[in-house]
Amino acid sequence: MPLDPALTDPLSRFQVAIPSWGFSPMGTRFATFTLGDEARDVYGRIDRAAAVQHALGMTPGLALHFPWDRTDDLGALGRYIRDRGLRVDAVNPNTFQDPAYRLGSVAHHDPTVRAQAREHLLWCVEACRQLDAPFLSLWFADGTNYPGQADFRRRHEALVQTLQPVHAALPAGCTMLVEYKPFEPAFYHTDIADWGTAMRICQRLGPQAKVIVDTGHHLQGHNVEFTVALLQQAGLLGGFHLNNRKYADDDLMTGSIDPYGLFLIFRELVKGERLYGRPLESVSYCLDQSANVEEKVPAMILSVLNTQEAFCKALLVDERALELAEREGDVIRSQEILRDAFLTDVRPLLAEFRRSRGWPEDPLAYSRQEARGARTA
Amino acid sequence: MPLDPALTDPLSRFQVAIPSWGFSPMGTRFATFTLGDEARDVYGRIDRAAAVQHALGMTPGLALHFPWDRTDDLGALGRYIRDRGLRVDAVNPNTFQDPAYRLGSVAHHDPTVRAQAREHLLWCVEACRQLDAPFLSLWFADGTNYPGQADFRRRHEALVQTLQPVHAALPAGCTMLVEYKPFEPAFYHTDIADWGTAMRICQRLGPQAKVIVDTGHHLQGHNVEFTVALLQQAGLLGGFHLNNRKYADDDLMTGSIDPYGLFLIFRELVKGERLYGRPLESVSYCLDQSANVEEKVPAMILSVLNTQEAFCKALLVDERALELAEREGDVIRSQEILRDAFLTDVRPLLAEFRRSRGWPEDPLAYSRQEARGARTA
Amino acid sequence: MPLDPALTDPLSRFQVAIPSWGFSPMGTRFATFTLGDEARDVYGRIDRAAAVQHALGMTPGLALHFPWDRTDDLGALGRYIRDRGLRVDAVNPNTFQDPAYRLGSVAHHDPTVRAQAREHLLWCVEACRQLDAPFLSLWFADGTNYPGQADFRRRHEALVQTLQPVHAALPAGCTMLVEYKPFEPAFYHTDIADWGTAMRICQRLGPQAKVIVDTGHHLQGHNVEFTVALLQQAGLLGGFHLNNRKYADDDLMTGSIDPYGLFLIFRELVKGERLYGRPLESVSYCLDQSANVEEKVPAMILSVLNTQEAFCKALLVDERALELAEREGDVIRSQEILRDAFLTDVRPLLAEFRRSRGWPEDPLAYSRQEARGARTA
Amino acid sequence: MPLDPALTDPLSRFQVAIPSWGFSPMGTRFATFTLGDEARDVYGRIDRAAAVQHALGMTPGLALHFPWDRTDDLGALGRYIRDRGLRVDAVNPNTFQDPAYRLGSVAHHDPTVRAQAREHLLWCVEACRQLDAPFLSLWFADGTNYPGQADFRRRHEALVQTLQPVHAALPAGCTMLVEYKPFEPAFYHTDIADWGTAMRICQRLGPQAKVIVDTGHHLQGHNVEFTVALLQQAGLLGGFHLNNRKYADDDLMTGSIDPYGLFLIFRELVKGERLYGRPLESVSYCLDQSANVEEKVPAMILSVLNTQEAFCKALLVDERALELAEREGDVIRSQEILRDAFLTDVRPLLAEFRRSRGWPEDPLAYSRQEARGARTA
Repeated sequence: MPLDPALTDPLSRFQVAIPSWGFSPMGTRFATFTLGDEARDVYGRIDRAAAVQHALGMTPGLALHFPWDRTDDLGALGRYIRDRGLRVDAVNPNTFQDPAYRLGSVAHHDPTVRAQAREHLLWCVEACRQLDAPFLSLWFADGTNYPGQADFRRRHEALVQTLQPVHAALPAGCTMLVEYKPFEPAFYHTDIADWGTAMRICQRLGPQAKVIVDTGHHLQGHNVEFTVALLQQAGLLGGFHLNNRKYADDDLMTGSIDPYGLFLIFRELVKGERLYGRPLESVSYCLDQSANVEEKVPAMILSVLNTQEAFCKALLVDERALELAEREGDVIRSQEILRDAFLTDVRPLLAEFRRSRGWPEDPLAYSRQEARGARTA
Repeated sequence: MPLDPALTDPLSRFQVAIPSWGFSPMGTRFATFTLGDEARDVYGRIDRAAAVQHALGMTPGLALHFPWDRTDDLGALGRYIRDRGLRVDAVNPNTFQDPAYRLGSVAHHDPTVRAQAREHLLWCVEACRQLDAPFLSLWFADGTNYPGQADFRRRHEALVQTLQPVHAALPAGCTMLVEYKPFEPAFYHTDIADWGTAMRICQRLGPQAKVIVDTGHHLQGHNVEFTVALLQQAGLLGGFHLNNRKYADDDLMTGSIDPYGLFLIFRELVKGERLYGRPLESVSYCLDQSANVEEKVPAMILSVLNTQEAFCKALLVDERALELAEREGDVIRSQEILRDAFLTDVRPLLAEFRRSRGWPEDPLAYSRQEARGARTA
Repeated sequence: MPLDPALTDPLSRFQVAIPSWGFSPMGTRFATFTLGDEARDVYGRIDRAAAVQHALGMTPGLALHFPWDRTDDLGALGRYIRDRGLRVDAVNPNTFQDPAYRLGSVAHHDPTVRAQAREHLLWCVEACRQLDAPFLSLWFADGTNYPGQADFRRRHEALVQTLQPVHAALPAGCTMLVEYKPFEPAFYHTDIADWGTAMRICQRLGPQAKVIVDTGHHLQGHNVEFTVALLQQAGLLGGFHLNNRKYADDDLMTGSIDPYGLFLIFRELVKGERLYGRPLESVSYCLDQSANVEEKVPAMILSVLNTQEAFCKALLVDERALELAEREGDVIRSQEILRDAFLTDVRPLLAEFRRSRGWPEDPLAYSRQEARGARTA
Repeated sequence: MPLDPALTDPLSRFQVAIPSWGFSPMGTRFATFTLGDEARDVYGRIDRAAAVQHALGMTPGLALHFPWDRTDDLGALGRYIRDRGLRVDAVNPNTFQDPAYRLGSVAHHDPTVRAQAREHLLWCVEACRQLDAPFLSLWFADGTNYPGQADFRRRHEALVQTLQPVHAALPAGCTMLVEYKPFEPAFYHTDIADWGTAMRICQRLGPQAKVIVDTGHHLQGHNVEFTVALLQQAGLLGGFHLNNRKYADDDLMTGSIDPYGLFLIFRELVKGERLYGRPLESVSYCLDQSANVEEKVPAMILSVLNTQEAFCKALLVDERALELAEREGDVIRSQEILRDAFLTDVRPLLAEFRRSRGWPEDPLAYSRQEARGARTA
């Protein structure tokens, strides 16, 4: 089957970033289990991301998390990453583990704590500059556990004011991603609870601030693909943290619970490029999952495969026919058209595409073989 | 007990509007039951709203719904309302019942249908002018039932463009309220799904467009009071549709399921006035409930009582002490302060306040007596 | 491709029943729209069900709803059904529309109302006998809208006592299906709220009472396939009402929102037969959807196609390999195995199966052609 | 005001147990913060529970958690507890932290792991005997994260078989409490997902097995008080883990988010005793909360106060009047009656009750003073 450039062109451009923290021991509040494949330090995490990229070919981007990935020499860190064929996609600050952050960080009532958070964020901006990272990806655990614990508006103003100098310090071409989450670890309110709050904050901060959508950070029933379309429309869609969930922020492998929902999100992204001129590459796609019971490298590969398949099926949608069915009010016809794309088994097509790029046809099998080889050697 | 002006002043200013549609036969998709107390026409509905106002004294505002409340002569309708001691609070268009609206109204793909909706909205603007209504309250059933049925962004653009001339036609001092709802009657997406979407639409329309919060129009777990605070902060809070729910848009009596949540919403409104200079009266408070199993006039009264109590308890909160507890990070203390207000039995205080205003002390008892008198006479 | 009997045998035995009420005008509490394809009476509904069966071949069963489908002569009704190649699958009583049922039916506090409901149920048992229906399918709208409106336990006892004589009157071989639903039209509690309640009621009633699972009657996040497995284990799984939802009881076309979830349910049913000896045919599979915006006959066909595909993919699952992966704790491997089945495009296989049975290969195309022919004739 | 024996009698009998684990450092999967008031060992935890009891007088019961509270000498542990005026209420095993339990414990596919879990459970039965604990309280983290990871029914059978010898070993008068939870730490299915599953397991195990309701272990919207009533009816209600939540299993202070819901649960318990002869004392009431941002001893006290108030308000409900309103179908009247109880400020009454018992009138103030004294001394 000759590959259609209408598919291979976007498939070639579509890349998914791998999070370094995804190779650390992980758990829930009840227990952290190790499977023996965890990395011991940042170099081990980079090596594992490189192994993922060897298998997939489409995951050269790496998301770092500071201070977890901090070393004495950022320049040397960058070289280590580049030498393994990778590049830095996003820099992720951490303002939720230091004891000072018990009641918040950027939205804390105490200016001292906010200053501590701001300093760390500015250090991360500098890391973006030195590591040539196009994204500074911000998630804050800020919030409260009880009604009356704090004033929402004071915290909101504090948050915006803390972030303003960070936004001002961003290098040109570096986008600040603002992540929202309805709850956990705060259980009454979170200071950036939903995409509306994140949008409002971005509007107040300036043009380099955009919203990042973590696919697991929504209340049950939320139509994520509609939010994606609206953020695109507003020019405020910055990126994705990809994972899947059944209940809350479960951080399961992407596409493992609701593959159709993943397809519908990518359909909006493909449409955004085709119909509305929003280039796919303007957005960061980064895995963000927590492998509690499964091995980490293959878990990453499986998530990317699910994502690539969803993307490929989205490319197959006959949008012109759908527009016609919409104009005719023919709901049944629209279902047939969408089914046609989703039900197609794109695995042979993707295997051929990988072969044409010189990538392993079966990334999971390749990765297993590599792992066995490493253990034998 | 002498009444404290710090309480009586805001209590005197706080008014709740009564929806005319609340006196019509109501039901679910399974059945509509009549209890015998339903009104037969708009005059019957106005009479019942007047009966509610006789009992309560704080509900002079009336929300009308067109074409349900349409008469040949708007001037005469206005006089009938004023003659009963009432005024029009909000005008509510209906773009969801005509067969043309099966696939939407203001966001419909067909410009003919959008034009039909726009004409009705413009007629309602004229009704606002003639009836001196400060609010044009917009809820749209627009949405889709299936993925792929329509393009989100085309619908969004159509919606904004349809509303632009309506916004432009608004009389000075008349606010367009834009309501959001996550689902029902559309079951895959709704075109104004959440407060973020409503905010975005208001931002695009102009300064007379604000967001109205229906307390039952949120996904499970949504922190409504946080949304209220953010809308206040953005200057975009326009009003409320008050009711209660346990599951979806259940339209139960206000305060009947979660009285503490109602108190927390009003606490934000009271704080908004005290701390941030947002006058309580700038916002419309309107009941919107569907009495399926209970009598309608007493159901309205009970909802207003629950609302007034929540408001009164919000006035009792010692915000200064709470701010101090927040600064000290004393979460237990903040709970004690909030409890003190909520656990107070404000019924004696409110009875005295009503007496001082010449209103019936026990509105439900008064209303029952009136009803018996009417039946006897 | 020669068809594998391991597939064709269960595919031949798998049948989906069609609900007569699915061809009536439908709507939400806001509006009912007609598309012109609605049936006018029970004969029109049977004719449409026959058209669905002509297209699909696997839908000879018909679910009736009384009194909606009541005629003077049940014997003649049965002949009309049989003459069109159909048989009655389930008889569905209606105890939610009569004005007497405003506060409940079988669980009503008033014994007169309960007696009225019981009489209707006993009439439906007689209809089962005369129409040779293997299932009496019970759904009750009973519940309350407010805390304190009624006593849960009094209502529970009343419900069980009302159903006892109905259970006792069942013909041998006729199963009473007890349906649960968390809310709507009751909005505070429903008397059969969840599968636990339904199981408890069945245990109290006797061996001919089993639980029916409506796929849309669960709170958000509920793991339906786990419930199916447990009901199988307990010998209490009686049937399904098939549809799909994104939010509440949306009654959308089966498989239209979450096709993977549908596959997982059928995987339990297939496993139940293979591993635990629960024959597929012991369970009733009946569509129950509300086509508000789409044409009704093709909506039925599309739902059956989605269901048949989910069932077929479930047949492809290599359960032996999965059991091995489970024993080895290899979570990644289990995902690969499940993916292999779900990602397979079974449409060619099913087309061939249909051809082998003498059924139309493309049921939707066939149905459209028939409809055009009917309009021309 | 003379205290009414109809109130003081049940108030005197109502006791809430305190969990030893509630005094350990607590956190989320993101961070664990210490406030300085955490206990270092089991003796510190007992001392803090004793401090709670000094302040409240109604919390002599203590829930222990093994192996966390394990010492070399159970007899000495029991004496330490009794010497501080406490008694053991429930023994809680832990089968979720050992690395062996990564894929489950009592439902694990590997009989070796199940045997390890069973041995620990049997040790805990022995602890119940030696410590004279009336309850063995079982919560299992067992479940899976992905579809296909394991077979539901094999796990269910394994779980029941593992628990059978544990049930058989229970001393007379010792009740096994079986807890359910819909998710976390397992994110696809949990082996005891809901009360129906727990009920089924109890039915299979035998008469000493009952269901324990953790108020935070339900999907959004679940009507907890209805479940309580049904479990009472079935004779299967064994106890409560008390806390509150807004989203998932947030483990906030009891009554802090939804005080009306707490009241409605206790109303069922009070009714159960009055109308159906289920003694209040047959059920275990135990706090189970996770104080992340607040001090632990006052957090316990505040939760007990909220619980006691809910219980006291439940005692005030005029059930006879409610039954009359139910019979008359007067929904508005039923709301008035329930409001009357809930809106009553019972704090003065409870202060007087405490005084009459020789307990501190203001437990929080007393506890603060004690804490200050301890620090000074």
